Amino acid sequence: MTHNPQALAESAAASMYEADTCSRWLGITVEAVRPGYARLSMQVRREFLNGHGICHGGLMFTLADSAFAFACNSHNINTVAAGCSIEFLKPVEGGDMLTAEATEQVLSGRHGIYDIRVTNRAGEAVALFRGKSAQIKGHVVTPPGAAQ
Amino acid sequence: MTHNPQALAESAAASMYEADTCSRWLGITVEAVRPGYARLSMQVRREFLNGHGICHGGLMFTLADSAFAFACNSHNINTVAAGCSIEFLKPVEGGDMLTAEATEQVLSGRHGIYDIRVTNRAGEAVALFRGKSAQIKGHVVTPPGAAQ
Amino acid sequence: MTHNPQALAESAAASMYEADTCSRWLGITVEAVRPGYARLSMQVRREFLNGHGICHGGLMFTLADSAFAFACNSHNINTVAAGCSIEFLKPVEGGDMLTAEATEQVLSGRHGIYDIRVTNRAGEAVALFRGKSAQIKGHVVTPPGAAQ
Amino acid sequence: MTHNPQALAESAAASMYEADTCSRWLGITVEAVRPGYARLSMQVRREFLNGHGICHGGLMFTLADSAFAFACNSHNINTVAAGCSIEFLKPVEGGDMLTAEATEQVLSGRHGIYDIRVTNRAGEAVALFRGKSAQIKGHVVTPPGAAQ
Repeated sequence: MTHNPQALAESAAASMYEADTCSRWLGITVEAVRPGYARLSMQVRREFLNGHGICHGGLMFTLADSAFAFACNSHNINTVAAGCSIEFLKPVEGGDMLTAEATEQVLSGRHGIYDIRVTNRAGEAVALFRGKSAQIKGHVVTPPGAAQ
Repeated sequence: MTHNPQALAESAAASMYEADTCSRWLGITVEAVRPGYARLSMQVRREFLNGHGICHGGLMFTLADSAFAFACNSHNINTVAAGCSIEFLKPVEGGDMLTAEATEQVLSGRHGIYDIRVTNRAGEAVALFRGKSAQIKGHVVTPPGAAQ
Repeated sequence: MTHNPQALAESAAASMYEADTCSRWLGITVEAVRPGYARLSMQVRREFLNGHGICHGGLMFTLADSAFAFACNSHNINTVAAGCSIEFLKPVEGGDMLTAEATEQVLSGRHGIYDIRVTNRAGEAVALFRGKSAQIKGHVVTPPGAAQ
Repeated sequence: MTHNPQALAESAAASMYEADTCSRWLGITVEAVRPGYARLSMQVRREFLNGHGICHGGLMFTLADSAFAFACNSHNINTVAAGCSIEFLKPVEGGDMLTAEATEQVLSGRHGIYDIRVTNRAGEAVALFRGKSAQIKGHVVTPPGAAQ
């Protein structure tokens, strides 16, 4: 095994995805992960539509929040969300494919800030999300070289 | 029919809930609605759990966002979310019952601000949500006395 | 001396205000303080006006942020702002008198959430502010009974 | 005169700065402006310090908010702030020089989202600010070719 940050990010993501019942249930897939970065996608199912016949904002948030989680745990230190904000820019129709791209803006001590851009199949931004993270104890996967 | 604001809030809520595939799919129920107010609840199913074995923040957000929608549409003017923020205070276990109570803080022209408190079965606050709304065209249900 | 929470809140506020060069420079005054609560006011001076001839949003934020600081330090544990959001509801003219009322919503472990409502002389809400606090080491004033 | 966007951004900024009593009073200077972009700086004066002897968060916000205003008015359409959030990352000492760089993220219809990064003299991020803008009626400066 190696301390290679990219390999560690991929291991952490694989372990998290395996355990993340909710993201798998919603059909969210992890397309790419790097240290401080993740890109996830999700198709808008009929069950995700709200009373206006468009995608429920909560499901758009859920995709962005999962992308945030994969990005902020990519350093293999257990990290949780402290707070998030989202701005909704465009309505999203059923059947569309959403992509959420999470980028680390700041990681200072135990706290980080991540920006997530959610785009539709046409590549238009439909929501902007900002997440504040807090590292807690433990690792996502056993770090290379650690005593078992 | 009557212009009674409480009757109108209840009619609008019934109509919205009927159309809101997503909230019904997640098992969200509307417990109370008044002008500028709504209280909704949701049980945390196994499918809502994330990689840490606790409720995915996106699902807590979704419940709060639905409560926000029912509160800001309670005046029977079509209203959408412009942006939202959420602070996560406590992890939530599977099987717990969450309640989201939405209260109108300000309604000024077409814009409103709503605060939503999400509590667990023990009555502890697990998340605070703030939503900014924007009224658009049309009514949720045909207003009493309107030409059909 | 006594462990009376109200007396402690008042001592902490007096000590903070004495040290807070910025709030005094801007003419901010502390009108009331209780555990988890503070009310401050500020007159809108000519120097506070922006390019539209109305009060600069940064100065409205500053008043709210000071109210937040007095409320979250009222328990006499050194506390700082981690993040804040503000919604601007109405323009504010020069000469108006603004009041910011800060109320503790949640205090859980070292983290708290405070809501601040800023009103004008007519009592209208002109801004809503939400602050997230983090307690750090030390006390604002030496606690009663503590070894010197 | 010309419809050149860069020339228009510079004219709008010059006109705004001339009128912006508050930013000039605080010693804020405009270092660069482009369509959808602005960079401003401010030295931290003794009067800006709060009770902890560090820069009041409200003054950091004010610098960021001014940068936001110059960026979102750079298209020469009168634009105001609807809401803003700020995350505080590091304390700032008196005498330090702060720079706020505002970048347009989205401009969709009348609404825009701008991210502002505030850095200290050492180039470290001390705050991240996100602003939501709303265009209103009128222009900052008379557009080239318009009837007077």
